[in-house]
Amino acid sequence: MKTNDTLIIADKTFSSRLFIGTGKFSAASQMKAAVRASESELATVALKRVNPEEKSEDIHASLLDTGISLLPNTSGVRTATEAVFAAQLAREALETNWIKLEIHPDPRYLLPDPIETLLAAEELVKQGFVVMPYIHADPVLCKRLEEVGTQCVMPLGAPIGSNKGLKTLDFLNIIIEQSNIPVIVDAGIGSPSHAAAAMEAGADAVLVNTAIAVAGDPIAMAHAFKLAVEAGRTAYRSRLAPARSEAEASSPLTSFLTE
Amino acid sequence: MKTNDTLIIADKTFSSRLFIGTGKFSAASQMKAAVRASESELATVALKRVNPEEKSEDIHASLLDTGISLLPNTSGVRTATEAVFAAQLAREALETNWIKLEIHPDPRYLLPDPIETLLAAEELVKQGFVVMPYIHADPVLCKRLEEVGTQCVMPLGAPIGSNKGLKTLDFLNIIIEQSNIPVIVDAGIGSPSHAAAAMEAGADAVLVNTAIAVAGDPIAMAHAFKLAVEAGRTAYRSRLAPARSEAEASSPLTSFLTE
Amino acid sequence: MKTNDTLIIADKTFSSRLFIGTGKFSAASQMKAAVRASESELATVALKRVNPEEKSEDIHASLLDTGISLLPNTSGVRTATEAVFAAQLAREALETNWIKLEIHPDPRYLLPDPIETLLAAEELVKQGFVVMPYIHADPVLCKRLEEVGTQCVMPLGAPIGSNKGLKTLDFLNIIIEQSNIPVIVDAGIGSPSHAAAAMEAGADAVLVNTAIAVAGDPIAMAHAFKLAVEAGRTAYRSRLAPARSEAEASSPLTSFLTE
Amino acid sequence: MKTNDTLIIADKTFSSRLFIGTGKFSAASQMKAAVRASESELATVALKRVNPEEKSEDIHASLLDTGISLLPNTSGVRTATEAVFAAQLAREALETNWIKLEIHPDPRYLLPDPIETLLAAEELVKQGFVVMPYIHADPVLCKRLEEVGTQCVMPLGAPIGSNKGLKTLDFLNIIIEQSNIPVIVDAGIGSPSHAAAAMEAGADAVLVNTAIAVAGDPIAMAHAFKLAVEAGRTAYRSRLAPARSEAEASSPLTSFLTE
Repeated sequence: MKTNDTLIIADKTFSSRLFIGTGKFSAASQMKAAVRASESELATVALKRVNPEEKSEDIHASLLDTGISLLPNTSGVRTATEAVFAAQLAREALETNWIKLEIHPDPRYLLPDPIETLLAAEELVKQGFVVMPYIHADPVLCKRLEEVGTQCVMPLGAPIGSNKGLKTLDFLNIIIEQSNIPVIVDAGIGSPSHAAAAMEAGADAVLVNTAIAVAGDPIAMAHAFKLAVEAGRTAYRSRLAPARSEAEASSPLTSFLTE
Repeated sequence: MKTNDTLIIADKTFSSRLFIGTGKFSAASQMKAAVRASESELATVALKRVNPEEKSEDIHASLLDTGISLLPNTSGVRTATEAVFAAQLAREALETNWIKLEIHPDPRYLLPDPIETLLAAEELVKQGFVVMPYIHADPVLCKRLEEVGTQCVMPLGAPIGSNKGLKTLDFLNIIIEQSNIPVIVDAGIGSPSHAAAAMEAGADAVLVNTAIAVAGDPIAMAHAFKLAVEAGRTAYRSRLAPARSEAEASSPLTSFLTE
Repeated sequence: MKTNDTLIIADKTFSSRLFIGTGKFSAASQMKAAVRASESELATVALKRVNPEEKSEDIHASLLDTGISLLPNTSGVRTATEAVFAAQLAREALETNWIKLEIHPDPRYLLPDPIETLLAAEELVKQGFVVMPYIHADPVLCKRLEEVGTQCVMPLGAPIGSNKGLKTLDFLNIIIEQSNIPVIVDAGIGSPSHAAAAMEAGADAVLVNTAIAVAGDPIAMAHAFKLAVEAGRTAYRSRLAPARSEAEASSPLTSFLTE
Repeated sequence: MKTNDTLIIADKTFSSRLFIGTGKFSAASQMKAAVRASESELATVALKRVNPEEKSEDIHASLLDTGISLLPNTSGVRTATEAVFAAQLAREALETNWIKLEIHPDPRYLLPDPIETLLAAEELVKQGFVVMPYIHADPVLCKRLEEVGTQCVMPLGAPIGSNKGLKTLDFLNIIIEQSNIPVIVDAGIGSPSHAAAAMEAGADAVLVNTAIAVAGDPIAMAHAFKLAVEAGRTAYRSRLAPARSEAEASSPLTSFLTE
C-alpha cells in the first residue's frame, strides 16, 4: 500500500496532506499533543503569538519542539499594505519566508478580500515570499494568483469556523481542474468526512483547525483527520466509480429458486 | 489512541466496523486481496455462489482462506417465503445461522420490500437465525424489526450500486437515535467520505461493495475505506463540534498593527 | 396559458393541485381566509374536530362554508384496527368515504408505520373507502398500496412539521416514475420553493399545512403556495432543461472588439 | 393580496422582480412571446446584437416593441478596459446609460473576474453609468462594489447555463444580509423552484435566461418563472417559519379512541 505520493510546495516536500491550525486550543500542551497526533508537517500560527521580542513564548516553543514547520498567517490585517508589513514582521520573527496570506476585513464572517489579497500576493512574491493565499472558492481569482506566482491557492469550503463542510464543492472542482499549483482547501472543514471528500475531489491538501481544537477530544480528533485525509487521497488515486441513477446489484440475482 | 471499542452482534465481536460485499469483482484473486486490505471481519456472499453441492467453489474457498466470517444474503428472492427457504439453504451450505435478509422485488432499483422483510424476519428469528435485514431508511420499520428480534438493522443510504452516498441522512439520524440494536448503513455508500460521514453520524458499521469492487484499484480502495471507517468512528467518539452559521476565527485577531 | 390540466382522484376532478391542512392556525377565521387564498379544493381535517355529536362545530362549519371538500384524516391512531375504526367514524360524521390514512405510532417524529398502513389500506378499500395513505417515500410500499387499490399515494418529503423540504427527492423520483396512481407529496414542505420543486419533479399534487399555518402572514403565504404549485406544474409540463456541468453562455460571445 | 412592493434601481421602478435574458431562443418571435409571458420589465441584450450601424435589427426591434427596458451587457470582454469600451458603445447604440457588467476571461465556465470587474465598475460609475455587475457570490467583493457606487450586485447561483440552482446559497445569505443595494441573483437558476428559493432567501430579483430559452415550451416556462418569483417574494414578505429537527403534528393527536 506504500506509494511515493508526496506534495511539493516551493522547497518543501510533505508526506502528510493535512495542515493544521493552532488557534482555539484550550492549552498549549493539548495543542502540542494534537499536532503530534495529526502527523501534520505544517502548522499555521497567528502572528500575534510569535512576538519577535518574546521568542521564548510557550506556544511557539511547543510547536517547534514537535519538529513541525511553522506557517505564520496574517490574520487580522485588513489591507494589502498591512498584510505585507505583517509578513515582513513574521519573516523576521520566525525566520521563514513562508506566509499564509489572510486578509479579511469583516469580523463577522472573516471572508477574504479578493482585491487586497491579489495585490498583497503580487508584492510578497516580488519580495521573495512563498505565498499561500486564503481566498474565496473563485476559480478566476485562483488563476490570477497562480499567474502572479503564489505557490498554491487555499480556497475556502465554508466560512472559517462554521464546520459546514464543502459548501463550495462545485467551484472547488473547477479550481482543481484548472490549477497548475497545489489546491489546499482551507476553512469550513468540520469533520473527517469533509476532509476526505475534499481529497477525493482531488484537492492536494486540507487545512483544519476549529474542528480539531474544539472537539471533545482534540487529540483523538487530530488522529481521525489524519486517517480521513489518507483515506480520501488513496480513494482519489484509486479512481472512484461515478454515481449512477439506477441501482446495480452487488450480488448477482439468485436464480436458484427458479432453476 | 487504542481503545476498547468493539461491535457485538449476537455471539460475534468485531474490531472492524467495515463489512464488505463480494460481488462485482473482476477476479476471485482480486476480491480476496481487497478483502484482506479492508481488514473486514464479515463478508456477504450471494447464495448462488455457495451452491451446497459444490462446496469447493473458488470464491467461497478464497474467502474462507482469509479468515473472514461469511454472511450469506438472500439476494434475488422476492417474497418472505422465498427468503426463508433461501436462508435455510444458506445455513446448510455455509454452516452458519447468520443471514443477511434482502427482499427486493424490483430489478431496476433493487429497493427492499418492507412488508415481506418484516414477515421473513419474524419467521427467521423464530427459527434461530441471526437476522440482519436490509431495509429502507424507515425509522418505524426499524423499530418493528427490533421488536421481532433482529440482531441489527441495515438501512440504505441510497439505491444499491448508485454510489450516491447518504441521501437518507435525516432518517438515519432518527434511526440511530431510536435504535437499541446496531445500525449498519448498507447500500449507496460510494466513497470513503460517505462511509466516514455515516460513522460520524453514529452508525455502528457500514457495508460496502460496489464502490470497492468497481474502483480503478479495488485493493487500495478497500484500504481507503478501512481508514475512513476508523476516522469516522474516532470522530464520533471524540465528539464533533456542531456546524455554526457565523464564522469564528481560528486565529485570534492580530492587534499588533494598532497597538 | 390556460390548459386543461386537471387531477382526477376517484370521482373528483381538481383544478388545484394544492391540498391544504387545517391544523395549527391561530383562529378559525384565519384558517378560513387562508383556505380561500390557497384556492385549494381539498382540506384535511383531524377527526377530533369533526365530533359526530357536535356537527355544528366552528371549524367544520367554517370550512364547508368555503365550498372546499373535506378529507378526514386518522391522525392519532397507532394501529390498522384503530385506523379502520376511525375511518368509519369519520365517514359517519362527515358523510364522505374519502379518508386520509395516517398511522404514526411515534409521537416525536410522527413517521408512518408501513405495515399497519398497508393492512388498513387493504381493509378500507374493501369497505369502499377512497384511501389516501400517508407513507414514507418508499417506492416498494407505494407499489403495494397501488396493488391493494388505494387511489393515490402520499409519500413524505421530510418529517411532518419540520419544514425541511424534499429530503427524500431521490426516492420521490423513483415513486413518480413507477406509479400508476397520483403521487401527492405530503409532510416536510416548508416553503413555496419546496412545493414548486415537488411539482417540477412530476408530483401530481402537494399537501401543505404547517408552512402556511405558522407563517407570519398565513393568508398571504397560502397565496404564495398557490402560485408556486402552478409555477412548478407549468414548468413540469413545459419540460425543464437538465442541469449541466459546464457553462453555456446565454449571450453569444461578443466579437466586436476583435473584428 | 395587492401590496406596494416595488424594486427601485437608479431612476427606474420595477413591479416585476424577474429580469430576463434574450440569448439562446430559437427565433425572435419566440423570444418576444416569452418576454411578454414573463411580464419582465428589463431584458439583457448582448452588445453584438445591437450593432450601432444597424439599428433596425430584428431582435432589438422585437424587444422594444414589447415595451421592455433593455439592459446591454458586456458579455465577451476579458478586461476592464474592454468592458469600459463596450459599455460606451452600448450607450451610444441603445441610448441607455445602464450596463450589465460581465467580464469572464474563461470561455468554458464563463465565471466572472473579480479584479477587472471592480476596476471597470469604478470607472463606469465615474462616467455616469448605472452599473449592474455580474460576479461570484463573494460577500467581500459585493461590499467593495457597493462602495464604488454600483446600483446593485448580481452574484451567481451556479455557472451560467448550468441550471444547477443556488449552489452558493450560504454566501448569498451573507450578501443579502450585508447589502445596502439590491441583490439580483444571476446565473445558474435552472427552474422556477430555484427562482422561488432565491426570492425566499431575500434576493431583490433574479435574472433568468437559459432555463426559459431552452425549455420545451419557452413561453409557458416564462410564465412559470413569473409565478415562481411572485410566490418566493410573497413568502419572503409573509415570513416563513424556520426548519425544525423534530416533527410537529399539523393535526392535533386524536384522543377519541382512549377518551
